[in-house]
Amino acid sequence: MNQKIQWLRNTMSSLDLQGMIISNPINIKYLTSIDAEGILLITRKENIYITDGRYIEYVQSILTIEDEIIVYNITDVSSDDYENFFMFCENVGFEENHVTYAKYKEYMHKFKINNLVETENIIEKQRAIKDDEEIKNIMTACEITDECFSYILKHIKPGMTEKQIAREIEEFYNKKSDGLSFDTIVASGENSSKPHAIPTDRVIQKQDIITIDMGCKYKGYCSDMTRTIFVGSVPEYVKPVYNLVLKNQMQTLDQMKDGESIRLLTKMVENDFRLHNFDLIHSLGHGLGLEIHEKPYINYKNDNTLKENMVVTDEPGIYLPGKFGVRIEDTVLITKFGCINLTKSEKNYIII
Amino acid sequence: MNQKIQWLRNTMSSLDLQGMIISNPINIKYLTSIDAEGILLITRKENIYITDGRYIEYVQSILTIEDEIIVYNITDVSSDDYENFFMFCENVGFEENHVTYAKYKEYMHKFKINNLVETENIIEKQRAIKDDEEIKNIMTACEITDECFSYILKHIKPGMTEKQIAREIEEFYNKKSDGLSFDTIVASGENSSKPHAIPTDRVIQKQDIITIDMGCKYKGYCSDMTRTIFVGSVPEYVKPVYNLVLKNQMQTLDQMKDGESIRLLTKMVENDFRLHNFDLIHSLGHGLGLEIHEKPYINYKNDNTLKENMVVTDEPGIYLPGKFGVRIEDTVLITKFGCINLTKSEKNYIII
Repeated sequence: MNQKIQWLRNTMSSLDLQGMIISNPINIKYLTSIDAEGILLITRKENIYITDGRYIEYVQSILTIEDEIIVYNITDVSSDDYENFFMFCENVGFEENHVTYAKYKEYMHKFKINNLVETENIIEKQRAIKDDEEIKNIMTACEITDECFSYILKHIKPGMTEKQIAREIEEFYNKKSDGLSFDTIVASGENSSKPHAIPTDRVIQKQDIITIDMGCKYKGYCSDMTRTIFVGSVPEYVKPVYNLVLKNQMQTLDQMKDGESIRLLTKMVENDFRLHNFDLIHSLGHGLGLEIHEKPYINYKNDNTLKENMVVTDEPGIYLPGKFGVRIEDTVLITKFGCINLTKSEKNYIII
Repeated sequence: MNQKIQWLRNTMSSLDLQGMIISNPINIKYLTSIDAEGILLITRKENIYITDGRYIEYVQSILTIEDEIIVYNITDVSSDDYENFFMFCENVGFEENHVTYAKYKEYMHKFKINNLVETENIIEKQRAIKDDEEIKNIMTACEITDECFSYILKHIKPGMTEKQIAREIEEFYNKKSDGLSFDTIVASGENSSKPHAIPTDRVIQKQDIITIDMGCKYKGYCSDMTRTIFVGSVPEYVKPVYNLVLKNQMQTLDQMKDGESIRLLTKMVENDFRLHNFDLIHSLGHGLGLEIHEKPYINYKNDNTLKENMVVTDEPGIYLPGKFGVRIEDTVLITKFGCINLTKSEKNYIII
């Protein structure tokens, strides 16, 4: 049996779960590397994947005997089969943060389970801690992102639109990686005050400020980086804001390590921003892996600590509606003794 | 108030719902054109959108007074506010097919609602019937798809990989549309037997069969088209399969109109395939609009009829594992008297 499913079985046993229904496709991909539509059942003795005719051939082609996963075509599963899967299970876990209320009722009806139990994101919590192969994939995605940023810096010229820059980034990623990990943000001038701006037809002008938030995937794993750059020169009124964001981004990097309180990390940035009459209006960062946003979320509501082999972003930002915004973001690997910055592009004033 | 919210209020009133919580972002976009993260509350007297600091500025910028939507920053909403929103409401609807079990429990706790009622996809059902503007957007997305297909036919050459072809399509769409409506499928040789194949590094060879499934978005609305094409010539053993798929695709087009039974449409294709010892292993088609797959689903399980101004696909396919597959798909508009094919690319043998 593969190591990740073995880990899950051990965890289930410690929680007194005799079975589990896994329906979140990202969790299934994590446990089995199957990237399709279907559900994974961990029963007392078997691992069962139920899918449909569109995916049977693909799924059979990627599984090996060592995976110990039995594949069913959903059209071959009878209502008796459903009732038998968890027959001698007292407690069966389900993913209450993924399963809809309607699906929950369907599971109850179909599987005839005694006790359908919430599992409080056990798999998502495990996914936050990356193994060596996952870390290598994220590192490669980050390297490609640094290369893409160097490339794009040479190509941005006044007269181009935000959309054109976003497309150049996308085309670079399409050639060098497995594609975007999220829709690229290119926000210039006053648009840069919107943290989640969508690229527009706004034309880049001399003296513009441009925030670029970009990332790609490599073997399914994400990278994420933001830089705020300048055309021609850095306006004097922007400098104090840029310097404050950069200072806090760097201080956070210095603090990030195994055991560090996530709430405290966030509070430090919030306090320093408030001291200067600004607000931190979004999270300080987030975990990333198979998904661009995953556990741990780096904000003041999270009372956990960072742990070794988590991969997270560090991305403070200040946004002045109608004026401009500054965000600086790196993807970093947490170790026992500090963090390793995986996105290595320049962070001092970048002037094109 | 905008027409779509007015329609929703009338429908709610006929279902004895005094309030509704809408959290599916696609439904919120449909009702309000807001494309952000947040929830829409339809209360007795008000329409309320609750979002967070990242989106406040954007949301304010796209709403007008006529929308009659009050926007709250989630950090300004107290627990008393939550309890007051639905204070005099006996029944409040929620989206049981979108809301997770965990969220359902949170809503119960937070809003203190007497009766949180399943709404059986009322908005999704309405979305299946397109208005004039929606139809125009889909038509434009289909026109761009036809253009892209003509373009790609001129560029595919033996020696290119599936991935390279998929990238050419994506780059075309990025220039001419609002981007892909789904990940392009380019499946050549034996890969074409996988209905949902992901483009690989397989090199296109002489005598290859290639299935291309492609679509883009225009103003948020999707197109979807598949063609199966040939390099050099059509192998004799493929011809009977291709002809059978095409015959059924055309017959379905002839049958599709307001009032037509969806089950019967599907059964006709299934029966003709079985007569020739093949199976229809996926749905015959699906609705599309803001999402690439939406109501109505065209399969034998659906006992509804097609209705005027639905937009659906017609996409029979036959797949022979390890050998090859053929799928032919158009996007069509249902009218009272027949259907209008919106993707107009050639369907007879296409040889490059």
